[in-house]
Amino acid sequence: MKREIKIYSPATVSNIGCGFDVMGFALDEPCEEIIMRTSAEPGIKIKKITGDNGEIPYDIEQNTATKALLSYIQFNPINFGLELEINKKMGLGSGLGSSAASAVSAVYGLNYLLGNPLHNDKLLLFALDGEKIASNAIHADNVAPCLYGGFILIRSYDPIDIIKLPIPPDLYCTVIHPQIEIKTSEARALLGNTVKLKDAITQWGNVGGLISGIYQNDYSLIGRSIKDKVAEPHRSKLIPGYDQIKEAAYESGAIGCNISGSGPAIFALSVSKETAEKVASAMEEACNQVNIENKIYVSKINKNGPLIVE
Amino acid sequence: MKREIKIYSPATVSNIGCGFDVMGFALDEPCEEIIMRTSAEPGIKIKKITGDNGEIPYDIEQNTATKALLSYIQFNPINFGLELEINKKMGLGSGLGSSAASAVSAVYGLNYLLGNPLHNDKLLLFALDGEKIASNAIHADNVAPCLYGGFILIRSYDPIDIIKLPIPPDLYCTVIHPQIEIKTSEARALLGNTVKLKDAITQWGNVGGLISGIYQNDYSLIGRSIKDKVAEPHRSKLIPGYDQIKEAAYESGAIGCNISGSGPAIFALSVSKETAEKVASAMEEACNQVNIENKIYVSKINKNGPLIVE
Repeated sequence: MKREIKIYSPATVSNIGCGFDVMGFALDEPCEEIIMRTSAEPGIKIKKITGDNGEIPYDIEQNTATKALLSYIQFNPINFGLELEINKKMGLGSGLGSSAASAVSAVYGLNYLLGNPLHNDKLLLFALDGEKIASNAIHADNVAPCLYGGFILIRSYDPIDIIKLPIPPDLYCTVIHPQIEIKTSEARALLGNTVKLKDAITQWGNVGGLISGIYQNDYSLIGRSIKDKVAEPHRSKLIPGYDQIKEAAYESGAIGCNISGSGPAIFALSVSKETAEKVASAMEEACNQVNIENKIYVSKINKNGPLIVE
Repeated sequence: MKREIKIYSPATVSNIGCGFDVMGFALDEPCEEIIMRTSAEPGIKIKKITGDNGEIPYDIEQNTATKALLSYIQFNPINFGLELEINKKMGLGSGLGSSAASAVSAVYGLNYLLGNPLHNDKLLLFALDGEKIASNAIHADNVAPCLYGGFILIRSYDPIDIIKLPIPPDLYCTVIHPQIEIKTSEARALLGNTVKLKDAITQWGNVGGLISGIYQNDYSLIGRSIKDKVAEPHRSKLIPGYDQIKEAAYESGAIGCNISGSGPAIFALSVSKETAEKVASAMEEACNQVNIENKIYVSKINKNGPLIVE
């Protein structure tokens, strides 16, 4: 019996200012989309990729979604084939965890087709194998919030230790995605291998503050803690109009604003939908002034991770 | 009318492994003690200092306790004199926040004599002025937990932003104080001005984990997060038998163990008094094996800061 499902996996904002490589949260929109069909013929095939300007490989060893599937199947063999249609909605190099979302969609979808035999903690590892193709290293700060939803802390990478944080109920997120591409690997190379001790201290003070604020629903503390001494000073230079867009967000009432992942997307947090929409208009206007096309989203924090439609 | 009060201020464990310069907690014991007397004759005098091997200056501009008082008085002048007797109970350079406790005792005591006109947030700044004498820089990770009690995060130093964390109810702390002195300034010079980015990431992952564990009463997570990539690798070399003492603590059931402040004191956290006492015996035995005299304490987390006896 052939089955077809559609999997939607949420965009994610990693780093959240201070939590470079260790924190992220999921958004209700945008979402990446994969259509997955079972087939009698064994093996995995990518039938179609849309929305990517032809950059995403059909080679199943080189594609984040199918690489994650291969990792799943190696652990838990299946006796049918799979056909995928990958519909990229965010574009590559957005800073919104597009490749992570595709990897998560794939393993989450297959697990669903099999009756959910494996726990998310296991799916995470397969999705990370896929994500590794895109970023050349293990980074869980998009994959984990995409899979679990909500706010996530990756306490440790070795061994992997994922901490699910509460979701402050009033938060809304505005995201602007200037239509330029930043490669994660290039954004990472900018950073160098060391940080000043005093900047590192400031950074972990802010990580502590952000997590305290999340547990206490203290929006002022969350806002005060969304600062970055490590990546933003370098990466913001790759985003035309960054300072003006950020300033516009704060002036319109955002509690915190910073680069999403390695950019160019920029996120801003607000404590009401109304403010988040005002912030959206202001960020859009600032971005228009530097003549960069952009997409803009206003979203609640995603609570549940991927969504499946049969 | 002459009055005399005795102020007890708690020892504090700063850094807590991962939270270098930004975290600390207070202990019920040991405590520093100051006797404070009003006098008709204006001015501040140190009448006696005990327990210090003659190292602590009587010059009121050079003494952390009286320097803190001068800072208080400059903000809020008084029309009487003060005589102090400073009884050091921990010894200098212990890593237990001895100088911070003396500075806190002084300003807390004077504020009490005046009918508590000033809030702790103000007293903190005066105590920091005193503590600066001892450490040549503003470090609040002993002063703040000593003054407020409990677990404290210093989110930011500029401006100062103190976050009071919850106190997980089952925690007991074992502290061993090998009777050698480590100067904070020397311990700090060991560290250098930069850290590897990957170590910094590990560190702020652990800060996030420790704070999450504290909010959730998750003792396993608290234990997993008490690790240090920044100070311990260097400073542990100054403490004879450190590795053996730490190993003895874990083997006896401690959830976490690390250097207290800049050492040589070593703290271990346990989730029952019984375990904390077992840990104490094991740490003491390991310390005896390297022939270093030591003092050992088993204590709950202090909840209230200084205590005044009239």
